Amino acid sequence: MARLAGIELTPIGEVESPLTDRTSAPKQGDEGAPDAWLVFDPAVLEGLDGMRPGDRIIVLTWLDRAERDVLRVHPRDDLSVPKQGVFNTRSSDRPNPIGLHEVEVLSIEGNRLRVNNLEALDGTPIVDVKPALRRTEARKSRA
Amino acid sequence: MARLAGIELTPIGEVESPLTDRTSAPKQGDEGAPDAWLVFDPAVLEGLDGMRPGDRIIVLTWLDRAERDVLRVHPRDDLSVPKQGVFNTRSSDRPNPIGLHEVEVLSIEGNRLRVNNLEALDGTPIVDVKPALRRTEARKSRA
Repeated sequence: MARLAGIELTPIGEVESPLTDRTSAPKQGDEGAPDAWLVFDPAVLEGLDGMRPGDRIIVLTWLDRAERDVLRVHPRDDLSVPKQGVFNTRSSDRPNPIGLHEVEVLSIEGNRLRVNNLEALDGTPIVDVKPALRRTEARKSRA
Repeated sequence: MARLAGIELTPIGEVESPLTDRTSAPKQGDEGAPDAWLVFDPAVLEGLDGMRPGDRIIVLTWLDRAERDVLRVHPRDDLSVPKQGVFNTRSSDRPNPIGLHEVEVLSIEGNRLRVNNLEALDGTPIVDVKPALRRTEARKSRA
């Protein structure tokens, strides 16, 4: 595995959210997570060209409060369930704690995107945003 | 944006695939991409505990042959379509070229997972694997 050298990510923005505490945050966005702002670095603003309210997007975050040296966890922190490999769970504790969040764009104000149902904590770095893809046909007509 | 410092990813494995050339590779896995192996670093093997053939997973890769200084592209490399912001496309050229690939696990042999429909090129670093989630109910019964 010759290529296994370190890789440097550059955050492109950060989450602004009422969620500040990992223990009380929902585990997934569809479990009661609040609306939040995605605040982008002005240097990448051009990358948002063409985005519109109503679009469904996948936000990739760096879960900076996760533990990276964990390989087995109790799924959903439920101690009654036997431990499983982290790659078989959505635990934020994992070697590279990248969060995936599918949300809807509610509004766009300059470098700020308002989105719904985001379970990421306030201050979480954003590393990428992609359109959510549903079907090949929809993809071809859209982009 | 106080947290916008660099972040170091550590590859956990790499893709072994017949695809070696970016120009001829399918743009998405459901557009004729071949079966491939995910070869994991033995140090993270425990993280795969509980994974089974038939599972649908999301593989996160580092698209190491992408350009990182591009913010606008012609969607799907189609020059007849006006340029759009990269965050509004699935282009591999983007500030943090993380690939998302939803695939099915076909078989597991030690630290090697056989998967279907993977459009990543041979030698692409793997940075994370997560179960694909469909519905809250399925998630709760599964993990």
